[in-house]
Amino acid sequence: MQRPRIYLDHTATTPLAPGVLGAMAPYLTEKWLSPAGLYRGARAMKRELDDARRRVAGLLGAESGEIVFTSSGTESIGLAVRGVAMASQHRGRHIITSRIEHRAVLDSAEQLGKQGWRVTYLAADADGVVDLAALEASLDDETALVSIMWANNEVGTIQPVREIARLVKARNPAIPVHVDAIAAAGYLPLDVGDLGVDLISLSSHKVGGPKGAGLLWVRRGVLLQPQILGGDQERGRRAGTEDVPAIMGMVRALEIALPAAAQQAERVGTLCSRLLEHVAEAIPGTVVTGHRTQRLPHIASFCFEGVDGEALLLQLDVQGIAAASGSACTSATLEPSHVLRAMGVPTRLAEGNLRLSLGPENTADEVDYVLEALPRVVERLRALRK
Amino acid sequence: MQRPRIYLDHTATTPLAPGVLGAMAPYLTEKWLSPAGLYRGARAMKRELDDARRRVAGLLGAESGEIVFTSSGTESIGLAVRGVAMASQHRGRHIITSRIEHRAVLDSAEQLGKQGWRVTYLAADADGVVDLAALEASLDDETALVSIMWANNEVGTIQPVREIARLVKARNPAIPVHVDAIAAAGYLPLDVGDLGVDLISLSSHKVGGPKGAGLLWVRRGVLLQPQILGGDQERGRRAGTEDVPAIMGMVRALEIALPAAAQQAERVGTLCSRLLEHVAEAIPGTVVTGHRTQRLPHIASFCFEGVDGEALLLQLDVQGIAAASGSACTSATLEPSHVLRAMGVPTRLAEGNLRLSLGPENTADEVDYVLEALPRVVERLRALRK
Repeated sequence: MQRPRIYLDHTATTPLAPGVLGAMAPYLTEKWLSPAGLYRGARAMKRELDDARRRVAGLLGAESGEIVFTSSGTESIGLAVRGVAMASQHRGRHIITSRIEHRAVLDSAEQLGKQGWRVTYLAADADGVVDLAALEASLDDETALVSIMWANNEVGTIQPVREIARLVKARNPAIPVHVDAIAAAGYLPLDVGDLGVDLISLSSHKVGGPKGAGLLWVRRGVLLQPQILGGDQERGRRAGTEDVPAIMGMVRALEIALPAAAQQAERVGTLCSRLLEHVAEAIPGTVVTGHRTQRLPHIASFCFEGVDGEALLLQLDVQGIAAASGSACTSATLEPSHVLRAMGVPTRLAEGNLRLSLGPENTADEVDYVLEALPRVVERLRALRK
Repeated sequence: MQRPRIYLDHTATTPLAPGVLGAMAPYLTEKWLSPAGLYRGARAMKRELDDARRRVAGLLGAESGEIVFTSSGTESIGLAVRGVAMASQHRGRHIITSRIEHRAVLDSAEQLGKQGWRVTYLAADADGVVDLAALEASLDDETALVSIMWANNEVGTIQPVREIARLVKARNPAIPVHVDAIAAAGYLPLDVGDLGVDLISLSSHKVGGPKGAGLLWVRRGVLLQPQILGGDQERGRRAGTEDVPAIMGMVRALEIALPAAAQQAERVGTLCSRLLEHVAEAIPGTVVTGHRTQRLPHIASFCFEGVDGEALLLQLDVQGIAAASGSACTSATLEPSHVLRAMGVPTRLAEGNLRLSLGPENTADEVDYVLEALPRVVERLRALRK
């Protein structure tokens, strides 16, 4: 299969980190029994699954019983948003989120809206930071959930999550705060106690783990209504025979990625900073989107005036560069990004969006190549338009 | 890891069939890109995924666009039951199912009940066949869904699904009929046109495929509200980056299992019949549960008077035999089976339930060993009780 020479779409998905396939392999071959069985090999599976849960809980500073394994980050987000909402409607039917969330949050909120919930969508400023004053003003006696992402997957802006949690808890400590940490994981230091929130969603395949696995951390005591029903797995919070190979792969990937976050942030951040600086210098009419300093170190997002994002991606592909425009998960649709729109980026600029997201395997040579190829491609596309 | 010598719990899970891991392997290593990407390798992934969808659709006599890949059979069932219900509430808020369904159906129905839906649970007779007269009587102008399993996973009884579909459609052709075919797949001939129903749920890991994959066939035109939200994957019916390795494994497993169904039914059926006959002969106070003739060929379910199911499983385990009691997916709880209860089996008998479910790798020697060991174990347990 022909592959891009330079892969810069790590917020879409990542290759398995070294060692992850090895951690999965026994569970794809000899260790295939269901952890629910009452016989020797099955009981061993249960112990090994419990052990993996303990390990990942330890990594996050959480308790083992607070970890719910899911089939994806998207499923984790839906379980958090709809699961908390549905479990706590007695408290009120109001949730607060922001306009720059991943669609998994927005679509869940929209569904709740159709079912009679009041949904407040916080605005974001031009840097992509959510409006804290609006958050404070919108909290009321009916608020059952606040869901804000830690860092945005399109423009990289980091939200003041601790401050958000503090504001919410000052109003009412019983209001759960959910954080989508999918884009941030592996680059920001993740300890559940540190953020002061109540639920955190993670995805496996964005941090070097396999597809088919996600995780939701739920602080003990937070009520959650399961969204996949029909069995006692995950303490009744997510039914279905556990996908042990994928879970084992995810746990191993997190064991690699999370402790290395600071180091990766520095290494990849250096490469990404070069991209951010030199692209803006080399290409007139470039707008760098996202916050200047409060940003993920591995995401560079640009808008080029007078360029069509789709054409740009296809031309970069010809040059062997894999990148994204708009939201990765839905880039097949190529609508102008709802995140850029929320940040007030004019449509004609948003249509010329390019997102480069780096990963552990990217090199300085690759960045050099992009810095050489990208200006040429943009120039050619602009020339064609005239 | 110590393993049972004789595995007779195939309705819980199965080992990967030969060739399945090979079908997954490329997607766990070099072919890891997301099918949503707009670059060469990603577009190739999309084509390969489309191709797998076409292949499995062809196998089922379905159209490619009618296949929704999910993360499990449980998820497929929830998508069918709650997805159809929520999409068609304008037609009415009444659903019909039976007391002997898998918990994935029952728990979904119960949740709808809490949300104001009227739920009719059809009774079953002593053989485990649902009451067709009651079905006919309960169909009304508000009925939005009928969900009945093809064959029961605990006692093996096959339901008259074609007759059920005919009754429903005679009342109103617009009422969708969902069939949980998870236990039946690989043993009964599966062609979606043949059954006359509208939705069919399948699981991967019950037919030699990997855990982490399931499938829902949805007849074109049947409205479905997605249950996992936040992306355009699966034509907007199931969001989240596709778990391509698991999907590829499932499709390969179905390509092996479905065409071989008649042959497996005969081979495994011969072994299972010997179990059914000789166990009842050798052990006094045995009740064989399930229909005498309309039954899956690979499931043997017994109740032994004066025996505790859990103790029986543990003693069989000591003998190297892996089996189940009650419902496999929830056997950790070991409550008396809701299926046996619905069939009118007295609690004291239901507590002595044993389910042996065979698979392609079981042999006549293994059956001989069970026929030798099981009577001894039952006798010893009964002696201890006295």
